[in-house]
Amino acid sequence: MTTLVFGHKSPDTDSTGSPIIWAWYLNEVKNTPAKPVLLGEPNTEALFVIDHWNLDKPEILTTLEADTKVVIVDTNNPAELPDNINEADITGIIDHHRLVAGLETRGPIEINIQPLACTATIMVKMIGDDWANAPRGIKGAALSCILSDTLEFRSPTTTDEDRNVAQALADDLGVDISALAGDMFAAKSDVSAFSEAELLRMDSKEFDLNGTQLRVSVLETTSPDQILSRKDALIAAMPAVAEEDGAAQVLLFVVDILNEEATLLVPNDMVKHLALQSFGATAEGDTVVLPGIMSRKKQIIPNLKM
Amino acid sequence: MTTLVFGHKSPDTDSTGSPIIWAWYLNEVKNTPAKPVLLGEPNTEALFVIDHWNLDKPEILTTLEADTKVVIVDTNNPAELPDNINEADITGIIDHHRLVAGLETRGPIEINIQPLACTATIMVKMIGDDWANAPRGIKGAALSCILSDTLEFRSPTTTDEDRNVAQALADDLGVDISALAGDMFAAKSDVSAFSEAELLRMDSKEFDLNGTQLRVSVLETTSPDQILSRKDALIAAMPAVAEEDGAAQVLLFVVDILNEEATLLVPNDMVKHLALQSFGATAEGDTVVLPGIMSRKKQIIPNLKM
Repeated sequence: MTTLVFGHKSPDTDSTGSPIIWAWYLNEVKNTPAKPVLLGEPNTEALFVIDHWNLDKPEILTTLEADTKVVIVDTNNPAELPDNINEADITGIIDHHRLVAGLETRGPIEINIQPLACTATIMVKMIGDDWANAPRGIKGAALSCILSDTLEFRSPTTTDEDRNVAQALADDLGVDISALAGDMFAAKSDVSAFSEAELLRMDSKEFDLNGTQLRVSVLETTSPDQILSRKDALIAAMPAVAEEDGAAQVLLFVVDILNEEATLLVPNDMVKHLALQSFGATAEGDTVVLPGIMSRKKQIIPNLKM
Repeated sequence: MTTLVFGHKSPDTDSTGSPIIWAWYLNEVKNTPAKPVLLGEPNTEALFVIDHWNLDKPEILTTLEADTKVVIVDTNNPAELPDNINEADITGIIDHHRLVAGLETRGPIEINIQPLACTATIMVKMIGDDWANAPRGIKGAALSCILSDTLEFRSPTTTDEDRNVAQALADDLGVDISALAGDMFAAKSDVSAFSEAELLRMDSKEFDLNGTQLRVSVLETTSPDQILSRKDALIAAMPAVAEEDGAAQVLLFVVDILNEEATLLVPNDMVKHLALQSFGATAEGDTVVLPGIMSRKKQIIPNLKM
């Protein structure tokens, strides 16, 4: 039986590249038939990465059959996985997020969660000596995953291990990190094809703030004006998205990668209050700039207060 | 703040020794103040191991204060941990059991779960080169944990990694494995001081079999007669233990380590039926012998049917 390897819904570069890396490892090193799949259409950066490294675009999984062998990467949160995930035979979990209650395994399996910026970094460490035999596309995918998750080492989630693995890969591949990262971020920043509702859900996590359900959305971009020029339409789209997704409010943080700051959209007094309580930031109009804020995991979620 | 390191309630050798090993590592290698504690009185084998290797007996934790930093070893099951475990600041999990939904961490932390027989084997691998500097008592604790969890390599949970780590430790320490294991199993087999209710709860896990709550208890022994001579009293004690613990039935498997078989007590038709459905074993009287059955995790729990 083929093992399916997948990351979270709304796949970003790490949730697209890491399944490709791990399926290579299972197939070629562990002699375990495996296939990377996606839980949705990858974002524009991930599509660029697939194309840039000449990788096959993984199929999108529409139905997860019960008892399928699966390896889950880049998440351990059932809300970001197929509804029937616990009917699958989970044979491995590799992740770098906080543990949330939900997944169950049938027996003892290998679970490796580490506080690093990127799943691919953990995989390179796990694969060890066999990593030297990875083909160029697999190594390139790993480098791109790390540059994406660390925002080219700007994010405070970046660890020395992420940086060292990425640097070694760039040297090995003869790649200019800044050029590659610049191309990736430009691809991610081109969001002209997406509706406002799609933008609000593109990179979004549910968060329960003392019983209030929030959808905490982030758009990382080198062209913040492209998104902020649509702020009236984005704000207008929030109530319907929130209601459909069972949330009280959508918070949209537009992360300016190059200037290392986030702009939070402020559609109402609730968000205005939240910005003040959480970040000490006083919103004058319908946006507020949060200098230095780049990471939802490390800087946004842990500080949210109302 | 001192990090508390602990295993599961009703500590066996692995849940006593592994916290001692990891607290040594945190203190001496990672410069992180840490203290091993126990969630109850250790079993007679674990007490022998503490004494044999001249280790300090860890304190028994009576109250877990909220926000305490903790590392959880040898379990990830909240039912085997303090009720308020999710109010603690869990900073690490090292385990070799199946993942059950329940624990939540505040941020991304290191979680290492591997399908090996023993937590201590995982720790030796994690500690890597620094393991060479561990004092004799710490190395001895690791060896004893592995011999205990593998029943001196007889249990089908035993992997090559467990065996290799144990053999290397025995060589390093100049220890005769059979002699040490024999002394440990003799200590574990001396259960004369315990009441029937205590025996039924000594090494016991809750298991939900299609909605029926079972308490699945195992007594590993080299003197099965010492326990089986008390079978009438053990059977008589089952209903009260089951009721107090919210279970429909206590299943007691007396594992004969040397003969590599288990004897299941059969107090009623429900257990008789379960023995037939689960193991194809026909009980004639109030016991039934199950040849080759030694591991609750690998052979008992996965086969339970009614």
